[in-house]
Amino acid sequence: MKTTDLDTSPAAGNGLLDRRFFLKAGAAGGASLLSAAAHGMQREPWMQVPGAGMSELGAPAAAETDLVRTDVSSRPGTTGSGVSRTPLQHLDGIVTPSRLHFERHHSGIPDIDPGRHRLVLHGLVERPLSFSLDALARYPVVSRIQFLECSGNSGALIAPQPVPGTASSLHGLVAASEWGGVPLGALLDEAGLKPGARWLIADGADAAVMSRSVPLDKILDDAIVALYQNGEPLRPSNGYPMRLFLPGWEGNMSVKWLRGLKVTAEPAMTKDETSKYSDLRDDGVAELFSFPMGVKSVITNPSPGLKLNARGIYQVSGIAWSGNGRIRRVEVSADGGRSWADALLDEHVLPKCLTRFRSAWKWDGGPAVLLSRATDEAGNQQPTRAQVLEGRAVNSFYHYNGMQAWQVDGNGELSNVYA
Amino acid sequence: MKTTDLDTSPAAGNGLLDRRFFLKAGAAGGASLLSAAAHGMQREPWMQVPGAGMSELGAPAAAETDLVRTDVSSRPGTTGSGVSRTPLQHLDGIVTPSRLHFERHHSGIPDIDPGRHRLVLHGLVERPLSFSLDALARYPVVSRIQFLECSGNSGALIAPQPVPGTASSLHGLVAASEWGGVPLGALLDEAGLKPGARWLIADGADAAVMSRSVPLDKILDDAIVALYQNGEPLRPSNGYPMRLFLPGWEGNMSVKWLRGLKVTAEPAMTKDETSKYSDLRDDGVAELFSFPMGVKSVITNPSPGLKLNARGIYQVSGIAWSGNGRIRRVEVSADGGRSWADALLDEHVLPKCLTRFRSAWKWDGGPAVLLSRATDEAGNQQPTRAQVLEGRAVNSFYHYNGMQAWQVDGNGELSNVYA
Repeated sequence: MKTTDLDTSPAAGNGLLDRRFFLKAGAAGGASLLSAAAHGMQREPWMQVPGAGMSELGAPAAAETDLVRTDVSSRPGTTGSGVSRTPLQHLDGIVTPSRLHFERHHSGIPDIDPGRHRLVLHGLVERPLSFSLDALARYPVVSRIQFLECSGNSGALIAPQPVPGTASSLHGLVAASEWGGVPLGALLDEAGLKPGARWLIADGADAAVMSRSVPLDKILDDAIVALYQNGEPLRPSNGYPMRLFLPGWEGNMSVKWLRGLKVTAEPAMTKDETSKYSDLRDDGVAELFSFPMGVKSVITNPSPGLKLNARGIYQVSGIAWSGNGRIRRVEVSADGGRSWADALLDEHVLPKCLTRFRSAWKWDGGPAVLLSRATDEAGNQQPTRAQVLEGRAVNSFYHYNGMQAWQVDGNGELSNVYA
Repeated sequence: MKTTDLDTSPAAGNGLLDRRFFLKAGAAGGASLLSAAAHGMQREPWMQVPGAGMSELGAPAAAETDLVRTDVSSRPGTTGSGVSRTPLQHLDGIVTPSRLHFERHHSGIPDIDPGRHRLVLHGLVERPLSFSLDALARYPVVSRIQFLECSGNSGALIAPQPVPGTASSLHGLVAASEWGGVPLGALLDEAGLKPGARWLIADGADAAVMSRSVPLDKILDDAIVALYQNGEPLRPSNGYPMRLFLPGWEGNMSVKWLRGLKVTAEPAMTKDETSKYSDLRDDGVAELFSFPMGVKSVITNPSPGLKLNARGIYQVSGIAWSGNGRIRRVEVSADGGRSWADALLDEHVLPKCLTRFRSAWKWDGGPAVLLSRATDEAGNQQPTRAQVLEGRAVNSFYHYNGMQAWQVDGNGELSNVYA
């Protein structure tokens, strides 16, 4: 096969090839050489009968049974205080289908009557305002593809010993969607800010009344009241009929089922930003208001549960993101971080969005430890696990953005390790 | 309300405002002024009980009953030779949810066993190759957000009198997705082209064996064998487990359920490119191989079925696209094309993709005719209906890209008109 002529000189240790390898040619060994006799293609049974008809709604292929959110779990005695996770290792690209977008609820999904729901804007404003869904829909909408990540995502990596898990179970509280909504600055402009206005307290119409304090400068920068996700109205599990959306900031501040926006001089110090979603240091001080999600990446393919079946050339693919803007660079290692090769980034490298990266790797059948590390356009480089944990209290698990190492064993099976 | 202070000076006739209006403030009149007594927000019934629990799959809100493909129809005596259409007037942004992506099948959706399916690359190649789905999945993937449009989309506009219809029923054979797949050039490189190779004949594993001839220069430019749509594996109604994807070219060339790729010196002149999908002129000559889809736009909101309930300021929003690259400009008219105002384009203006545009319009309650016209980066401007029809034979309906006019009557109802 012609691919044996390809330049497979290494870019880093243990088989990582130059990223330009993919620009020149396909992976070696995937295709089968056809015998002359096989040129006549078989007419398979599904070509011999008319197929299924058109329908109102498309559905995934029945064979794709992995396309479900994973690790659906809730606190004992509840069904609605928990999570479900995006199956990252079965996805590609950057858009997450809405039905697979992770969930994190604090008292389940409220059954809101969209005709009755109101968003109330009050506090330090000249003109307190109330918005129905119909009223909001007449305002100008902006639409951008951006990530949303729970601040507790990847928190299992603080465990002293690596816990078994998949890309989904360990890192599946992140997803990217096209979010469309009304810039909140336009609504504040209509209401008119009073002197001293510095914060906005957002609360949700769920039974837990999720409440978070947001600095007004973030609101005026890029906050929206989201009405649309991936082109269609929000789904109940993502805040229908409206949610706050704060690009790049920890997920629970993007308050779902948005009901109240109160302009204030000071933050409210709600339960959701003091006893929860704050970062305890090992000196006993709790850091509040850690808003942006740090630069991060994870290899999704291969990853635990996706076996390498034969030695040869593989595409190593994953996602990288940063609350600070665009991803500038992703590097991949196959030798546990001793050497690194630059990965290719897909065409769409959007600010505060998942960015897909890919590397060519020639697996020789032996043990390997795969790692990725991302750098964002602000120059922040994804830290090691040790760097993330430095200065943290035991069990302080929010905002974990350390590098993920996947051990590959001689059978081609992968597992979570600390490298 | 403060919005009465806003500059609503017109940018074009019959109420079109400058696009910067949206950058400065929200639409006027949408919100209600709150009385002091109403500041205390009601605790609605859905806040008084725990909500529904987490789930493996998210679902749309039950109230959003319009989120289905429309005009599901098939030729008499068949269930699988027809179309279903994307509900454009109920969507926003640029990504189309996969379950709402239009369908056009010629003999239904084959029930393919993904483990048995093979893609065979043969003809004028040094090494004929056969690819299983697993083999293809090891090749490098690229991923881009791009539109797909049936060449018959909007064909109803050739009717001598305007037919009643919605944005969906008239123009719903277009959608945009993130398409991920293996660059076909890499597979050709592996197979090795023989001298004289100029065309590729692609055929599908449906009972109709959709077959199209594609020039090799397009293949080497940006063609992929698509495996993913919007981050997940293709769905059966969009070609599972693999389809050809030719960005910007007429939809049926992006052969679904891709089975054969034969390299040839000449096009095959299949039934699907001679008796169908060719453009008959009024001098009796049929133009073959009209590949790229022309520059086009349509206002989706407001549009027929979405009533204007009160005079005031509205967002006029729609989609524009071109098979030649990026959209450079969209203009909107409210007076049937006598005057035009530039629309705002959303942040993501991607090549060969839907681009969302928005204009501010102050409806005075009287009759109006809304129109949009797009210009692409190659300088092509969307034609009028008369320009499209010039030189065409009667009933020649492919590649209709004329401007769409929506009449607004004094009751705020909209209808398809010729302007």
